[in-house]
Amino acid sequence: MIIDCHGHYTTGPKELGDYREQQKAELKNDPLVAHLKGEINITDEQLRESIVNNQLKLQEERGTDLTIFSPRASWMGHHIGNSTTSKNWTEHCNELIHRIVEMFPKNFVGAAQLPQSPGASIQTSVDELERCVKEYGFVGCNINPDPSGGFWNDAPPLDDKYWYPLYEKMVELNVPGMIHVSGSCNCTLHTTSSYYLGADTTAFTQMMMSKTLFKDFPELKIVVPHGGGAVPFHWGRFRGLCDMLELDNLNSIIENNIYFDTCVYHQEGIDLMLDLVPTENILFASEMIGAVRGIDPLTGHFFDDTKRYIDGAKISDEKKQMIFEGNIRKVYPRIEQHIAKHF
Amino acid sequence: MIIDCHGHYTTGPKELGDYREQQKAELKNDPLVAHLKGEINITDEQLRESIVNNQLKLQEERGTDLTIFSPRASWMGHHIGNSTTSKNWTEHCNELIHRIVEMFPKNFVGAAQLPQSPGASIQTSVDELERCVKEYGFVGCNINPDPSGGFWNDAPPLDDKYWYPLYEKMVELNVPGMIHVSGSCNCTLHTTSSYYLGADTTAFTQMMMSKTLFKDFPELKIVVPHGGGAVPFHWGRFRGLCDMLELDNLNSIIENNIYFDTCVYHQEGIDLMLDLVPTENILFASEMIGAVRGIDPLTGHFFDDTKRYIDGAKISDEKKQMIFEGNIRKVYPRIEQHIAKHF
Repeated sequence: MIIDCHGHYTTGPKELGDYREQQKAELKNDPLVAHLKGEINITDEQLRESIVNNQLKLQEERGTDLTIFSPRASWMGHHIGNSTTSKNWTEHCNELIHRIVEMFPKNFVGAAQLPQSPGASIQTSVDELERCVKEYGFVGCNINPDPSGGFWNDAPPLDDKYWYPLYEKMVELNVPGMIHVSGSCNCTLHTTSSYYLGADTTAFTQMMMSKTLFKDFPELKIVVPHGGGAVPFHWGRFRGLCDMLELDNLNSIIENNIYFDTCVYHQEGIDLMLDLVPTENILFASEMIGAVRGIDPLTGHFFDDTKRYIDGAKISDEKKQMIFEGNIRKVYPRIEQHIAKHF
Repeated sequence: MIIDCHGHYTTGPKELGDYREQQKAELKNDPLVAHLKGEINITDEQLRESIVNNQLKLQEERGTDLTIFSPRASWMGHHIGNSTTSKNWTEHCNELIHRIVEMFPKNFVGAAQLPQSPGASIQTSVDELERCVKEYGFVGCNINPDPSGGFWNDAPPLDDKYWYPLYEKMVELNVPGMIHVSGSCNCTLHTTSSYYLGADTTAFTQMMMSKTLFKDFPELKIVVPHGGGAVPFHWGRFRGLCDMLELDNLNSIIENNIYFDTCVYHQEGIDLMLDLVPTENILFASEMIGAVRGIDPLTGHFFDDTKRYIDGAKISDEKKQMIFEGNIRKVYPRIEQHIAKHF
C-alpha cells in the first residue's frame, strides 16, 4: 500500500469560496462580528465530481492508494477575522473532508484543519481536533506556526507553553501534527514558495533548538512538509549549529519526533534527502493537487508525481516500503483502524 | 587565485560592541535622538590582532587568497533606533573594513554595509555606497531585504520602486549587491538558520517573480548567499512555479542577474547545487568566520571550509576555476582595480 500523507482538498466547488466571501463581507461591516455558522450547500454529486476527475484520477494514474486528506492549506486563512470566523470556516472545511472520506474510504482518510486565530486561545483547536478524531476518525491535524499570515507576530515558538494543551490532546489521541502555514497576507512573501518553505525551516528550527519540547512530550510527532523546507540542503549547517549550541546531534533530536515529507519536486532533491535524513524519518507525500500542477518538460511527468522520484531512487526496496507505508503507519497510528475497516 | 566573496568582520574588539551599547543607551533615553557620530578608539594593533589570528590564519590554512569583506551581518541591526543610529554605526563599521583592507590588501577587499533603517528613504544607503566605492575602493554591498529584523513589515519587495535609486547607483558604479538580513529581533526566528535561509529564499522569490526588475535593470547583479537558502533543494518546485506563473524558465531568469554563493556546509549540499545551478551563477564563499565555527566530526574539518567541498566535487577544473575566481571577477568587476594594484 502506498500512503500519501499530504493531500489537500484544493478542488472544492464554488459554494465553498462563496461562503468565505460572505464571511469577509460580514467582517467588513464589523470585524468583531460573531458569525453564524450557517450552511454550505454542496451536494454529494458536486463533491464526488470535484474529486473523481482530480485527486482520484491522479491516484490511479500514479499508482498511489490512500491519501491523508485535509482542507486546502492556503485557504485556512487563520489571519482572517476573529475566532468565530475561523471556528465556523474550519468546521465546515473539516466536515467536507469527512464527507469525502465517507464517500471514498479506500482513497482518503482525514486530517483536521484547526480553528487557530490571532490572539485566540489554542483551546478551540483542541476541541476541534477532538471532534474530528472522535466523531470523524481523522488521523492527524495541520498546525499553523504563524496564524498572522506572514508577519510572525502572533503565535510564540512551538515549544512555548501556549501550545501545550494541543500537544497534550495530540498525545492523548495519538495523532501527529503536520506543520503548515496558510496563505500569506504579507506582500513580501509568496504563499507556496518563500512562505511555505521558510515556515517549514522556521518551525523545524524552533523544535530543534528547544531543550524542553520533546522532553515534555516524548510521544509528540511532528511532520515538517515540503521536504523540511531548507533543512536537508543545509544539513551540515544544522549539524554544525547543534554542535555549537550544545544540543544533541541532529539525528538524535529528530529520531522519535520529527519527520519530513517528500514534497520535493525533482529527483535530485529527493536523492539528497534520502542520502542525509534517516529513512525512518521520511514519509511519502505529494501534496497533490497542490502548489505546482504542471508537467516537467525535462521528464515529461508531473512535477508533483513524487512517487516516481522514490521509485527512481537508489535505495533498497525495504527502504522504499518504509517511506511509502511503514513509517506513515507508525507516525499516524490511528490509520490502522481506518485500514482495518476499509481494506 | 581563490576569491571568497562572502566574509564578515565578526571578530572585532570590544570597543566596537561598546559603541553600539552606547547608542542603545542613548536610544533608551530618547528613541528619536540624533546621535553624534563620535569615535571608536580601536588601534591598528588591535585591528591587526583581531584579523591575524582569525581570518588570516584560516585563509592560509585553507588555501584561499582574497576575501570580499564586509561588516558583521548579524550586527548590522537595521531595526535598532532611527536613521542616525544606522548612519553613524554603518559609517564606523565600513571605516573599520577600509582600515583592514589598507592593512592587508592582498587578503581583503571591501563590501559595504548600508545604513538602512525602518521607514527611512534609501537615499542614505545610496550615499554611503558611493562613499565606500569612491573613497575606499569597495567592490560590493550588502542589501537587507527586511530592515525590520524579522517581521517583514518595513521594506517592500525587491522589485518595488523604493529600491530603484540604490539599483541605479549600483549599476552606475558597477557593483553587485549581496542579499543579507541582520540579526533577528523576532523570537520565532533564529538569526543564522531560519532567518538567514528564509530571507535568502524570500529575496530570491521576489526577484524571480518580478516581471520588471531585470527589465528595468538588465545590468543589476544580485548575490543570494547561503547557497540561495532553500532554492536549489527545491529547484523543481521553482521551475514548476515559473511554468505555472508564465515566467521565463528559471535558468533564463537568473542568467545575467542572480548568483548563489557556496556557503553550504557539507559535500552533499554543494554537490546538489553544482548539479542544478548553472556554473556561471555560482560564486565561491565560506562566510568564515561566521555562523558555524566548529569541526565536523564526520570529516574532521571545519564545517565552513567550503573550499574542500568544491575541491572534492566531481566537476572539471575549468568549472572549479570559474567558481573560485572567474565568475567572481565578472560579478564584482571593480575587483580588477584592486587586484591590479596589489597583486
